[in-house]
Parts: sequence; structure tokens; C-alpha cells
Amino acid sequence: MPHRVVIVGGGFGGLYAARSLARAAVEVVLVDRRNFHLFQPLLYQVATGALNAGDISGTIRKALKRQGNARVWLGEVVDVDPVARRVLLRDGTLEYDSLIVAAGLRTNYFGHDDWAPLAPGLKTVEDAGEIRRRVLLAFERAEREEEAAGRVPWLTFVIVGAGPTGVELAGTLAELARHTLRGEFRAFDPRQSRVILVEAQPQVLPSFPPRLSVATLRSLRRLGVEVRTGCSVVTLDALGVEIDCGRRRERIAARTVVWAAGVRGESLAQVLARGTGCRLDGWERVLVGPDLTVPGYPDIFVIGDLAHVEHRGAPLAAIAQPAIQEGRYAARLIQARLEGRTLKPFRYFDKGSMATIGRADAVVQFRGRGFSGFFAWLAWLVIHLIYLIEFENRLLVMIQWANHYIMRRRGARLITAGDAWAGARDPQHEAGRHSVHENTVPSAAKRTPVSPP
Amino acid sequence: MPHRVVIVGGGFGGLYAARSLARAAVEVVLVDRRNFHLFQPLLYQVATGALNAGDISGTIRKALKRQGNARVWLGEVVDVDPVARRVLLRDGTLEYDSLIVAAGLRTNYFGHDDWAPLAPGLKTVEDAGEIRRRVLLAFERAEREEEAAGRVPWLTFVIVGAGPTGVELAGTLAELARHTLRGEFRAFDPRQSRVILVEAQPQVLPSFPPRLSVATLRSLRRLGVEVRTGCSVVTLDALGVEIDCGRRRERIAARTVVWAAGVRGESLAQVLARGTGCRLDGWERVLVGPDLTVPGYPDIFVIGDLAHVEHRGAPLAAIAQPAIQEGRYAARLIQARLEGRTLKPFRYFDKGSMATIGRADAVVQFRGRGFSGFFAWLAWLVIHLIYLIEFENRLLVMIQWANHYIMRRRGARLITAGDAWAGARDPQHEAGRHSVHENTVPSAAKRTPVSPP
Repeated sequence: MPHRVVIVGGGFGGLYAARSLARAAVEVVLVDRRNFHLFQPLLYQVATGALNAGDISGTIRKALKRQGNARVWLGEVVDVDPVARRVLLRDGTLEYDSLIVAAGLRTNYFGHDDWAPLAPGLKTVEDAGEIRRRVLLAFERAEREEEAAGRVPWLTFVIVGAGPTGVELAGTLAELARHTLRGEFRAFDPRQSRVILVEAQPQVLPSFPPRLSVATLRSLRRLGVEVRTGCSVVTLDALGVEIDCGRRRERIAARTVVWAAGVRGESLAQVLARGTGCRLDGWERVLVGPDLTVPGYPDIFVIGDLAHVEHRGAPLAAIAQPAIQEGRYAARLIQARLEGRTLKPFRYFDKGSMATIGRADAVVQFRGRGFSGFFAWLAWLVIHLIYLIEFENRLLVMIQWANHYIMRRRGARLITAGDAWAGARDPQHEAGRHSVHENTVPSAAKRTPVSPP
Repeated sequence: MPHRVVIVGGGFGGLYAARSLARAAVEVVLVDRRNFHLFQPLLYQVATGALNAGDISGTIRKALKRQGNARVWLGEVVDVDPVARRVLLRDGTLEYDSLIVAAGLRTNYFGHDDWAPLAPGLKTVEDAGEIRRRVLLAFERAEREEEAAGRVPWLTFVIVGAGPTGVELAGTLAELARHTLRGEFRAFDPRQSRVILVEAQPQVLPSFPPRLSVATLRSLRRLGVEVRTGCSVVTLDALGVEIDCGRRRERIAARTVVWAAGVRGESLAQVLARGTGCRLDGWERVLVGPDLTVPGYPDIFVIGDLAHVEHRGAPLAAIAQPAIQEGRYAARLIQARLEGRTLKPFRYFDKGSMATIGRADAVVQFRGRGFSGFFAWLAWLVIHLIYLIEFENRLLVMIQWANHYIMRRRGARLITAGDAWAGARDPQHEAGRHSVHENTVPSAAKRTPVSPP
């Protein structure tokens, strides 16, 4: 019976680990609760209607189709027994000889989990669909408001957190309002809408060098994004947020709030901590040893966003490159051990990090240096296209982008079913009490006869 | 105050009516509960993972962006007051001078509405997503079954109804199993799966000339579809269907059943019947007069799929062309009346109808004659691309198709959230009792340790 490697999670880390084992004398079982790999760096494009979810994902099964020693297992891991070497699924068990946990991160509300329905994060395809729905519905509701004052909260969009996701979302939302939707409404000009980016740290993109933060701030302002640095959210409800900026507090009336302020480990990290006694960091990521294994359990690897791996005195960022390199390392170490060898500790090869700001503008940092502007954006574009795992999607995504870039069009602006909003955002209002079924949309706040233009 | 035309529904009929009023001295308000126009003829491509929903839809707002006299109103019409000339929305009212009702059809279970959760129809984007989810999950579950016998019901797909939708779905599902998924599973060969098309009439495509029905039957069989004509469904449950074929009955164990057997008018038809006393036909479509208005109410038009309009002794088919021509006629008649003129009764100009059967095969009928095969498919392709309303999508859809056609690829194979299935299809099983949240997938029927290949 061959050595069985169970991999939990089909993101960059898990998928690269599986592929790197293609020629090893092992049996690979990749377990994921979703049937697809998601290219998360472009998820904000789905949230703003430029791309379809299908454009940035591919099935895990297809990615491993030609790898004869790999099986794909649709299932959710709920527990790990490190002594019996077994993972427990919601509906089955899987025995392993080596286990690679690459379960990733989820949105972190820092103890305010009640804010989740009020301000979705952006980690899953469903999150992206929900943000798109709220944003587009907000404009629709504004169109039906009789008074200009009533439109203001619908046309105010607050993004909490100015890391790459928050910056990318804010920039794209500002462009959506200023360009894509221009001329589509009769009651108002979408350029009246406000996009407010709130960040607790003193600058945007706090993990980037200060020079790039300054460049980003300038770009965001040029797009019309209002930036509030040094401000943290203290209350959040269906009608808006209150932010604390040190000396002053501000109430922002906004019907649409997006949470991009933080992430934490998927629950599997706590499962591992219970089972193996391993330690977690403040984000609930697993503190792994220099060979990416859990201390005391050399057969359990944790890789990707869920692993806390130090690099030059700070943990590696939750981006694709560390996950890919860690996945490859784990695969190589497993192979080496089967051959009676071992490997030097994992070392990260820095390929930099980047973020876009709206159309044709980006910042790139690379080993302490950085650049910004159009060429940074080109670099971003090329690198992201190269790493799109589903090869067939590359051309299509590029064309959609070109189309979007040249024409400022967004072809995926469907509002599809969902009942979270009407109830959660607007509990006092009539429609919130209906169960919103398949074909209805939540209704505006009051009866509004058409006021002829 | 200008004459106000309220149009209910942004499908082909409503949208063409609105556009045809662009130069009229009227105010147009188009109300729809969805924010997008859906190109329904290609919905089966979404249901089988070849296209994204965003590829075959465009926002109504954008389609009418440049038409200064038109407003788009997101809302659901629940009642019509033909005396006060007012439509009642779920959350507001709209007064009209002329009303054009183009609300379309929904799936008809012929009194068996309890079958709806067991066998989804294919009328909405959500329907298509649900069918895709069930089909893809069925293959995933088959992969996790230990015994070959346990896989059979997961790999059996029953399509009820062999009109164009049923034929198109059956053909594409057969191709999905035989080509697209080939080699992706380890426990079975997807070519083992069965696609069974059940039709109560003695032939497939009953509304087409017999010669085309025969050609279609041959094409379907070549694709591996099993066709059961002259059979109607008598029972339908979570584990399969029982069909009555006259002299014999047959039980088919199938976990996935799709209902393409019939349609009926949206509830607005009954609302109109209550308010105006108009008569409905057996499909709950409104019997309109020769000028497409409701008898006794010359200011209320019913057009598109919801209207029963006779043509050569039979009602017009529920396809795009009649809707488009009726929308244009209603617009022209409203204009004529404002100018003190009238028009001759509506007359349909037959442009034919068509259906595809899998890859590169189709049937086309045109004024009693017809042809089939590759050139019919080419005609189908060209005509469908021409009528895609969102111009920006044409190129993309064509490329996706070309990609799909040449490579037999399907780029939109995501299984996304939904909780209908686990509970409804498999009530006895454990996972059905969990509430299926965002990131989980329904689980297989029992605990299955991996059996090493």
C-alpha cells in the first residue's frame, strides 16, 4: 500500500503540493469542500461586476485530471486524529501517512461576529456575489428614492480596511460609479456617490513601504475615494458606521459597508491546536517549525495562508507566492523522507507583492524596493495572467479585461437571489418580513410613486 | 404630463416595446423584478457549465441607457387596477396611461407543485445554477461511492419533456459525461452515465415537423441519449421516477431529474383575469384580441410568452421572435393612437424556430419546411449571436463557444452555495439535517473510507 498524502484545501498551497507529488511513489488525496480552485487575487473584480466567478476559477478535478496518483475528494474536514493518523470528514474518514493542511483564512471581525451580516468580507465566491448584489441594489434603490436626502446613504459605500483588498475594492467601486454607471440613472448622477476607505493604521497599504503608501493615497484620491486613515470602526449597524479617529468621532450614513479589515485562520487551525497542542498566532494561524510541520508531529504540515512562517522577522503575507513555495517544499520533503533523505529548512524566495488601484494603476514592492503607476499595473497584469491555473481561462479573462479597460464596461452585473440583505440590513422595513423568494428583489424603504422627471 | 407607458417585464417583448417607443412622445417606465435581461435560449449552456450567467445577460438599465424617455424600475408587480389605471408593486404604485404586460412564463408541474424541489425547471438563472450544481455534485458523489451499484442512481440523469429545452439539455448532458468529464474520475468512467429523455408525446420535438423529429431522435441516440417517447411520469421522488408508457411501467433510479415538460403563465395572468375578466388558456396565458389588448381594456396589452396569439390555427410558440414582433406592434399602436390613427391587427411574420442537439447539430424549421445537421447548427449559431442584445457579450460568448466546441471544455463548472438539495433530495440522510452553510457541500450517503484504487 503506497504512502498516502492527504491534502486539505485546493488553493494555491494545496494544489501546488499535489502537483509537486506527481512523480512521487505516493497516493495523493486532495480534500476540499468546494469543487473548484479560486483565483482569489481577482475576486474583487467579481465583487464589482467585471468578471464572472467562472472566469477566475477552475475545477480542482480538472487541474489534477492527468495526475494518475491523485484523487480529488469533495468533503469537509471537521477533525484530525494525529495519533491514529486520520482526518474525520463530515461524512467519512480518511487515513493518512502524511497530512498537508492548507485550509486558508476567513474574514476576521475581531470579536464582532454580529457585524458579518451587516458588512460582508471578500473571501469566497458567495462573498463576492453578495457584495455585487448590495452595491448594485443600492444604486437601484437610490433611483427609487423621492428625495435627494434619502439617496445619500444608498450612494455612500464604506470599505473598512486599506490593505490590498480594501484598496482594490475602493478603487474599482469609485470607477464603477464614475464611469461604468454614468448616464444609466434618471434620478441622480452616479458620480454623486461617495466611496470612503477607513483604515486604523496611519497609512493605506500598511504592509508596503511608506513611499508606495503615499503613491497609493494619491491615486485613490485622484479616483475620488475619500480616505480616513487612523480611524477605526466603533459601531456598525444597518444604517452606517461610526468611526473613531482619535481626537474626533464621525458617523457615516451608509447602506453598504464592506469588511476588508482582517483575516483569521479557518477553524481547522483550532482543531489542530486541540489535537496536537500546537500554538496559534494572533490571527489563529499555526506556528510551524522550520520544515513547515507541526512541532512534535513531523507527518503534519501546515502551509499557505494558514501557516505562520517567519521571514526577515515578520510572518509571510497571505498571498499566493508563499503558499506555492510552501506547497512545493512540503511535497519535496515528503519525497526526500521516503528516500531516506531530509531537506534544509524552508526558505522563502521573495517575488514581491502588489496591489492595483482602479484602472491602469498599481503598486509593486520587491525586496524592499518598489514602483507604482502604469508599468506597475502592467507587471501586475502579466503576473496574474501567468499564474491563472486554468489555462483555458487566461485568454478569456484577458479579453474581458481589455474590454473593461478600453470600454470601462462591466459585463457581469446580475443581481441574483439572496435573502440576507433585506432582512439584515433593513430590519424595520416591510419587505424584510417577507421571505424573499427566487424571483423577487428586496423592495425600497417606502411606497414611492414615480415622480415624473 | 406625457402619456405614460408602463411595461412589466424586461424580456424580449418588454425590451423591444420600450425601444420601439424611443422616439414617441411618451414616458416609458419598464418595471422588472430582476435588473437584467436574460438571453433564455442559451440558459441550458449555463445549466451545463459551458457559459456563465453573466455571459448571457445584460442589465436592462444599460440597454435603455441612451433612451431619454425611458426609466427602469426595479420592483415586483403584484396587482393591476384597470379602472384607476394603476399597477401595484410590492412596495409602491405606478400610474399608467398604457400598460404592456410581458411577464412571461414559469415552469408548469401540472398540479404536482411538490415535484418542484425534486426536479428543477429551467426558466431562471437560479434554475440553471441549481441544475448545474446537482449534475456536478452527482458525479462527485458517485466518485465517493464504494460499490458500483451505489453509483448508478448518481450517474443516471432523467430529463422530463422533449421540447427544445429538454432536447438541448439531454444532448449537452450526454456530451458533458462522454467528453468533458472523461478521465477526471478514478472510481468510474463518466461514459457509464445514462441520460434518459422522457416525453409523453409519441415523438421528440412534438411541435416540429415529423421529419425533424426523426432526425433529432437519430442525433440524440448517436450522442447516447436514451429516449422514451409516449411515456409520462407518474411518480417522482428523491430516488427516481416511475414512468407510464401505456402497456408497461418503468421505474428509473435517478438522483438527478430535470423538469422541462411544460410552462404556464406567470401569476400576473391570473391577476389580470381577476381584474379585467379576461380569459386564460390552458397554459394560463392571456387570450388577447387581434390588437394584442385585453378585451374591453384597449389600454392594456399582453405580449410575449404570456399572450395567447393565434397564428394559422395554433398559438404562437413561446420563443423570442413573436415576443419581439408583438413588442414592436404594441409600441406602434400606442404611437398611432396618440396621433389619432389606428393599425391593422397584429400579424406574425414567421422567421422559423430551431433547436440544437449537442455539438454542431441542430434542427431548423421555417414555414413548414426544415433542415437539420451541421448547417442548421451554423444557422442557429449565427442567429443567436445576432440577437444577443448586449453587444459587448457577443464576441466573448463566441469565443467561449469556440473554446467549448473545439476543446469540449466547460469553463464554468462551479458548485456554489445552495441548501435545497441535501434536504430535498435526500431527506433520510444525515447531512440533510444540517443547515448547509456557505462553505459546505452536502455529504455522501454514508461514511466512506477511501478504498485505495
